[in-house]
Amino acid sequence: MKKNSVTVDLKDRNYKIIIKDNITEDVVNNHKTLYPISRAFFITDENVSSFYLKRYISCFEKANIKCESVIIKAGESSKSFKMLENISTRVLRKKISRQDVIYALGGGVVGDLAGFLSSIMLRGIRFIQIPTTLLAQVDSSVGGKTGINTSLGKNLIGSFYQPEKVFIDPKTILTLNNEDFLSGYAEVVKYALIDDLNFFKWLHLNYKLIQKKGSKEIKKIITLCCKKKAAIVRDDEKEQGKRMFLNLGHTFGHAIEAELNYKIKHGLAIALGMLIAMKLSVYLKKSDITDFMLLKKHYISMSLPTSFKKLSLKKKWSADRLIKKMQNDKKVLNNKLRLVLCNGIGNVSIENNVSNKFIKKSIIYFM
Amino acid sequence: MKKNSVTVDLKDRNYKIIIKDNITEDVVNNHKTLYPISRAFFITDENVSSFYLKRYISCFEKANIKCESVIIKAGESSKSFKMLENISTRVLRKKISRQDVIYALGGGVVGDLAGFLSSIMLRGIRFIQIPTTLLAQVDSSVGGKTGINTSLGKNLIGSFYQPEKVFIDPKTILTLNNEDFLSGYAEVVKYALIDDLNFFKWLHLNYKLIQKKGSKEIKKIITLCCKKKAAIVRDDEKEQGKRMFLNLGHTFGHAIEAELNYKIKHGLAIALGMLIAMKLSVYLKKSDITDFMLLKKHYISMSLPTSFKKLSLKKKWSADRLIKKMQNDKKVLNNKLRLVLCNGIGNVSIENNVSNKFIKKSIIYFM
Repeated sequence: MKKNSVTVDLKDRNYKIIIKDNITEDVVNNHKTLYPISRAFFITDENVSSFYLKRYISCFEKANIKCESVIIKAGESSKSFKMLENISTRVLRKKISRQDVIYALGGGVVGDLAGFLSSIMLRGIRFIQIPTTLLAQVDSSVGGKTGINTSLGKNLIGSFYQPEKVFIDPKTILTLNNEDFLSGYAEVVKYALIDDLNFFKWLHLNYKLIQKKGSKEIKKIITLCCKKKAAIVRDDEKEQGKRMFLNLGHTFGHAIEAELNYKIKHGLAIALGMLIAMKLSVYLKKSDITDFMLLKKHYISMSLPTSFKKLSLKKKWSADRLIKKMQNDKKVLNNKLRLVLCNGIGNVSIENNVSNKFIKKSIIYFM
Repeated sequence: MKKNSVTVDLKDRNYKIIIKDNITEDVVNNHKTLYPISRAFFITDENVSSFYLKRYISCFEKANIKCESVIIKAGESSKSFKMLENISTRVLRKKISRQDVIYALGGGVVGDLAGFLSSIMLRGIRFIQIPTTLLAQVDSSVGGKTGINTSLGKNLIGSFYQPEKVFIDPKTILTLNNEDFLSGYAEVVKYALIDDLNFFKWLHLNYKLIQKKGSKEIKKIITLCCKKKAAIVRDDEKEQGKRMFLNLGHTFGHAIEAELNYKIKHGLAIALGMLIAMKLSVYLKKSDITDFMLLKKHYISMSLPTSFKKLSLKKKWSADRLIKKMQNDKKVLNNKLRLVLCNGIGNVSIENNVSNKFIKKSIIYFM
């Protein structure tokens, strides 16, 4: 099957994203060619390991490359100081050296944690991403953001640390449950909202094929999103400018995740966050109501959450508490919230001075 | 008094080391000029805070700059995951933002920990070093190595993260106890051993003035060592080549520290490590015995440790256990120890294939 390739252009640290069905052999060949005497350290979680780890280890060992693996508990709660120390110790006990390579085999949690570990292990170890969820394939595995959560908020501790390569097998999407699929799909919608009305129209036109995980559609989505992300990261690796657009819905979303103690899929919180961001734009007269209705319609077609109740029936939601959580965000500037607004589909802006009144009103609308 | 200045030349991340008596005002002016609306976050330890923290905070506040401070327990045991999490939380609770500046006010432990914290806090916060011990002033505050220890070895977790500036007040040396002074002085001897026989001769000729902490001598030492370190870091920031020379004595020294559960001053362990490294060179016929005798003589003049007993009388030392600890070092390459040898005063080399027999023999010589 055809191989798609996207380059993330960072001068002396260029790297490639390879998108191809059944990619295991490519990963092994890459290792054998570039790091013939280095060991491969796999970081993965319980769920992913049962699907893919054995296959990778047996392929690597056939090629006479030594493998080690560290399996973590699945889920956002693993992005913690405790788990970071835990896997550091486990990797050090296996006597990792600066010549070895760490592989993140899994979704966003595994990628963020293994990437962060790679950046601080012996002050920096080579690192390769093998994302196995849609969310990681279209977003988190590309661009070098790594990190863990603290009780005060998401990804507040971490680093910018680029992988050496990203290997994406779109077929892994077939093994995702519906929640995980939708969580990733929310980030796909994000790319459309940022600057691509045509892409949004195409998504809406093809939503039934996408729901069925049609291989042609999925591959198109992954390749396009990787291209969009690569272009943004090339221009603004350290998030001084346009990379902030990728945080659309994230200030709301992170607060929602924190309120639910991270017991929710990241993308589902982001989905609602984006809808809130667009509603806020409507209140601020920066977006037309029809764009909001179009987006909401697409959410309903795809079964993305359109209210706080859809996220959790049990939780007692409070707009004030959410706003307080939002204040812990990394994007706070001189005590003022810096928000990404969605001013209609395909158009975003960064606002430093949105009044709390409108923020609260737009949150309450979804309660 | 005259201000000395050394530039660390790293292209887009150049920074200056300012060496000057009574430097507080310079630090404040620098902040006011470059970061007028940013807060200053001081990380310091109990010992240093009682000497200097108040002075800094009052100067900053006079200049209308908001200050926060986090005080840690003094000593190597603070370089841990636990303390890293602890200070992360304390700093996040004070709502640090990406515009703020972290100041490391203290010795090597404070600098390594605060530097590491800065590199991972919100994925990177501006960071300034104000080293207050001789060890930090001549070595650890310059060059961007940061890190913490794990039960498996020293500095195995960390990052390369350069400060924005280094402010050195040589007068702080006067407040050091003898052990801290000698610990720093060991690193001074290291620079002489690496490539500067004349510097070594000057040190030996002036050892009495140095012991008295003569201000002219101390300032000359600090400036020269910073210049040497800056030149090495400029050529090899990430320790792929000649920066490894700076690890002279450190593979032995780190194992000694681990054996004593880090309850020893770093430099004192390094001092003995360097003497062992030179003895090993003598056994390998790479160094003349007279150079070893000269070095030992200087150690005796300065009261630097010349045997394991001088480091700890209580400890039951074992060469085999030390060698096992050495295997955990970052500099292990394909399971082989990579050692920096001292082939006579002013001449070092990196050896990948030293037989364990000679390593053991050279350790036992000092038991």
